[in-house]
Formats: sequence, structure tokens, C-alpha cells
Amino acid sequence: MRNVNVVVMGFGNVGRAFVKVVSLKRKMIAEKYGININIVAVGDSKGVAIKKEGFDEYELLKMSELPRSSLHMFAPYGRQEVDIKEVYRETEPHIHVELTPANYLTGEPGYSNILFALRNNAHVVTANKAPLVLHYSEIMNEARSRGLSVRFRATVMGGTPFLEMLSSMKSHDIERVEGILNATTNYILTEMHENLVDFEQALKKAQAIGVAEADPTLDIEGFDAAAKLCIISHVIGKPINMNSVYRESLSKVTLKDVLDAVRQGQVIKYVALLDTQNKVASVKIVRLPKDNILAQVGGVLNAVRVKTDATELFFVGKGGGRIETAHSVFDDVLSIVLEKVIGK
Amino acid sequence: MRNVNVVVMGFGNVGRAFVKVVSLKRKMIAEKYGININIVAVGDSKGVAIKKEGFDEYELLKMSELPRSSLHMFAPYGRQEVDIKEVYRETEPHIHVELTPANYLTGEPGYSNILFALRNNAHVVTANKAPLVLHYSEIMNEARSRGLSVRFRATVMGGTPFLEMLSSMKSHDIERVEGILNATTNYILTEMHENLVDFEQALKKAQAIGVAEADPTLDIEGFDAAAKLCIISHVIGKPINMNSVYRESLSKVTLKDVLDAVRQGQVIKYVALLDTQNKVASVKIVRLPKDNILAQVGGVLNAVRVKTDATELFFVGKGGGRIETAHSVFDDVLSIVLEKVIGK
Repeated sequence: MRNVNVVVMGFGNVGRAFVKVVSLKRKMIAEKYGININIVAVGDSKGVAIKKEGFDEYELLKMSELPRSSLHMFAPYGRQEVDIKEVYRETEPHIHVELTPANYLTGEPGYSNILFALRNNAHVVTANKAPLVLHYSEIMNEARSRGLSVRFRATVMGGTPFLEMLSSMKSHDIERVEGILNATTNYILTEMHENLVDFEQALKKAQAIGVAEADPTLDIEGFDAAAKLCIISHVIGKPINMNSVYRESLSKVTLKDVLDAVRQGQVIKYVALLDTQNKVASVKIVRLPKDNILAQVGGVLNAVRVKTDATELFFVGKGGGRIETAHSVFDDVLSIVLEKVIGK
Repeated sequence: MRNVNVVVMGFGNVGRAFVKVVSLKRKMIAEKYGININIVAVGDSKGVAIKKEGFDEYELLKMSELPRSSLHMFAPYGRQEVDIKEVYRETEPHIHVELTPANYLTGEPGYSNILFALRNNAHVVTANKAPLVLHYSEIMNEARSRGLSVRFRATVMGGTPFLEMLSSMKSHDIERVEGILNATTNYILTEMHENLVDFEQALKKAQAIGVAEADPTLDIEGFDAAAKLCIISHVIGKPINMNSVYRESLSKVTLKDVLDAVRQGQVIKYVALLDTQNKVASVKIVRLPKDNILAQVGGVLNAVRVKTDATELFFVGKGGGRIETAHSVFDDVLSIVLEKVIGK
């Protein structure tokens, strides 16, 4: 049995779900692959819980039910204001899992954490998009020079292995990636079409059920989808930056627009497009015929159409969801363990 | 620049397309990854063409246009009746690409070729399903014990990276895989629905345009789809064998059945199902409501729905197609090169 030490930074919705999924699945993983996934430290903005030999299943489950920002009170393992250097010194992690929130201005704290991890010989799995969007090349070069992996399938269509699939198409020239990449805005539009409510009402409902955040700017101004296009562009080797993505605000869509569209047999969708042949990237409000395959993807589902020089794919799945995203993070951890840490 | 020697066994439609794709893309791969993919030998049932230092782009293109079973006449490299031992002795391949036809009774010649390759320290990429269906565990154990890879994404939804995606979902418990996995039969059914012709006529048209083979037994009796279910079952770690797949013959579908279905707003589809919870696998003639997502997948497209304990995916793409499948084979070659031969 081989021990793999994992440090988790960030303990919001996905962080909690990740800890829960690990607690439920680590026995299965141990039996199937002969690996103990040991979560040795989990940090939030206020503190850290550290257990050098790894938290057991029951402790992880208890931890996943802590209130926000209270890891430091998780007795007897919680501590206040411990810095990442101390965490690494005590736990010597093989894999760093970065689940802090995205800040597209600074990339922090994810950016510094990820570089610190790589410089201390830990592979990285991140669900935080901002460090990748702002510093992709630097992060990847740092990893490559040390023979380390950085994986991030949870950042785009987070509840699916879409990015893993895309990056495995190495003999293809990816010409076009187009789809519905943001669950919050797709939910809002679906609400507007199905219940004929206006944008504000649909947004409020989305917030009420936790599909939209209190500050929904990143989603409804298209930043989130634009960030995903950037990450896709890096994965397929045709990098663009976020500023070059043309964005329309979803808040411009009125109930009248929806009614007009429906009368004409159309559906309004918020479509992200990366066209590598014409070097265009955009997040736009688009009218699609009702029987268009993207038009039929409703609610919190995401969908993407990929066109390469050789083939075309269409893919539908959950964009996010805590548990789904946590599984994607865990899949990245396992792929690193199986390929890099223990060999296959 | 690193040289990677590749031996190709089997030179039918996919073999030709593979050689063509490599000739078109090897320069791009060399520039992007610093790897020369050198095809050093290509074999068919009558002979082999060998060039120790690797065929150049122009030679590969010429080779791809040879008539069937005439590699031995490809001057000055062609030879008659050379055995695989001699090929390996002369070319020392890193990767073996197996593109021989599927024989579900014996698994040959793929089975022997693949074992020979592994025992001579070559990684294996196969588009031939039969050796996997009949000898999966033996082949994988042989590979594992030698630290070698066997990849086969071209065997299921061959024009897509579906299998690669599925095998990357290691933290998931895959509960159900259901879909249209055979392009020939889906084309026949689509013909019957769209042009209201009977089974025989639709089959003849499929044969005329090269979508069905002269002997269509493997497709219309469900063997091909059943073989794919077996491979999927191994990939997700819940193996079944081909005999345990319940199969209905597509030839039972009459034009009257189609008309009856259409009148009731339904579509007849040939659906493969692997239900790991109830331990059921089948390839069946199924009536689906017209607006069911599988019902809308026509012609030579394949589609699959995957349900796990954590998420659900839906995936549409080309089942086969020479060029598409050749790209999948090439993607497997590249993934082995990047992960195993040169490290990342």
C-alpha cells in the first residue's frame, strides 16, 4: 500500500464536497489501486487543519460539515494563521489541491499557492480558474521544468471530463469550440423561457436556490465563460487572453426578447465561441432555432460542440455542481497518482 | 529531437488512413513536441514494407495509395512473407499499432501480434477489438508486468476520444452506459425511417456507399456493439464477456415496424446497454419517443449516455470513418509517446 499525501487549499462548496467524496471513496481506491489517498492538511482563509498521517474517513466527514471559515476550530487538528510553508514542512505533500475562489484581477491566492506547491515538488490540481487564465505559461513552464503535472479538468464543464478529453486529441487541429459553458446563466435563460419571467426575477430565483452567487457579476457579464474559453485555448495550444474575448452582458436580455424569439420558433442562449481559424472568441447572446442541439440544453446543463480538422463531437453534461466538480478534482488527483506518483 | 519507431500491422481502410494521417501530421508533431514519429514497418496479410530509419512523408503518402495486399510490391522496401520476429529484429519498435480485422472466434492475428509486441517491449495501440474482447486480462497483465501501455480508443466510438474520457473517470462508479454504438446499423435504421424502405434495401444502400461490409453479420447481429460493451465493461472495471450480452438481430425490423413507430411519434433505434447495477448487457431493438436525445442521433453518428454515481454525460460523435478512426489511433500513439516514451 502506497501513501499519497494531499494538501487542500480552499474550503468553500467544492472543498467541502471534495473532502466528503474522498472520505466516501478512499477505501474503494485503496482496494482497487493499492493507494491510500491521505488528506494531510486543509486550509481556509482563517486557518488550517493538519494531521500528518492523514485524516481518517470519519474525520473527513465531520470536517465537511464544519461551518465556513472554521477549520482552525477543528479540534485537535485546527490551528489559526498557519502559513503554507509550515503546512508543507510538516506534511510533505505529493499533491496540492487548489480550491480557493477565482480572482481575475490578481489570480490570488491561487497563483502564489500553485507556484509554491510546484517549487516544493508537489503536483497541482486546481479548480480555481484565475491562476491559469492569468499565468498559464508561467505555471506550466514551472511544472514542466520539474517534471510535475498541473491538472484542472474541474475548471471547464466542471462536472465532466471534457477538458481531459479535449487535451487527449493531440493529433487534431481544433478549429472551433462552441457551447454553453456557464450553468448560472443557462439556468436564468431557461427560467425566462419556461416561466416567462424577466431577467431580474430569474436571477433572484437562481440566487435563492444557490445556482447564482450573491454577486453574480462574473457569470452574467460573461467573465466566467470567457475564462473558460481562455483555458480551452491554452489546452488546444492556441492561447488567447481574457481581454480578447468579446463579451455581452446577459442582463441585456429582456422578457420581450424572449417572447419575440419564442414566437419565431427560436430560443435565446448565451453562447461561448472560440474560433481558432478566424481567431475570434466571444460570449454572446444568440438566437437559435428551437431544434438546434444547443437550444435543447436547459437548466444547469452545459454543452459543447468541438470541430476539428478530422471530426466533430458534441458533449453534454453538468457544468458544475459541488459533488460533480469534487469528483472531477478527485479524478485529476487519481490520474496524477496513477501516472506520475506510482507509475501505472 | 527524439525518434519513436512505430510498426503497423494491418493495412485495410484504417491502416491506409493512419499512414496518410501520419504523413500529413508528423512535421507538426515534430515541431510541437520534438518527436519524430517514424513508421518503420507496415505489414498486411501478404508481406511487409520495412525501412529502418522510417518512411518519409512522401513515401507514406504513396504507400497509402497502394492497392490491397500489395505492400510486398512497395519497391524498394516491400518483401514477401516476412515474419514479425524479423520485423522487430530489424526495426526495434517502441510502439506497435495493430489494425488487423476482428475475428471474434480466435482473436487472431491480433492476439498473437499484441502479445509478441508486449513481450518484445513495445507499447501497443489497437483498433482491433477481438483480442481485447477475448483476452483483455491476459493482455493487460502482460503489459502491466512490463510497465507498458495498451491503448484502444479507436475500438469504441472510434472517431472520438470517448473511451479515453471514460477511463479517466476513476473516482466514479459507472452505473450505466447506454447508446448507439454501431454506425452501420444506425445508418440502416435512419434510411428506413427517412426513405421508408425495407431492411434489405437499406442494407444494400449501406453496402453500396461503403457503410456496411459485404458480409454485414457482425454489425446487424449485434456482435460489434456487444464487443464494444465488453470493452467498455473492462475499462470501467466491471468486466463481462461477449456471451453474456443479450443480442437481437436488426434484420427483424420490418418497414411495417418503422411505420407503426412513426405513427406513434416514435423512432426505432438499435440500442446497446450496459447496466452494471443490475448486471445486464444487451443490444436491442428499442422504440424511443421522437424527442428522446438518442432518437435524434441519425446516420453514421454514434451517441452514448453515461450515468455514474455522481454525474451524467451525453456524448455524440462519429462512430467510425477511416480518417476519424486513424486520428484516434494516432492520438493513442501520441499519448503513449508523451507519457511513457519521453515523459512529459
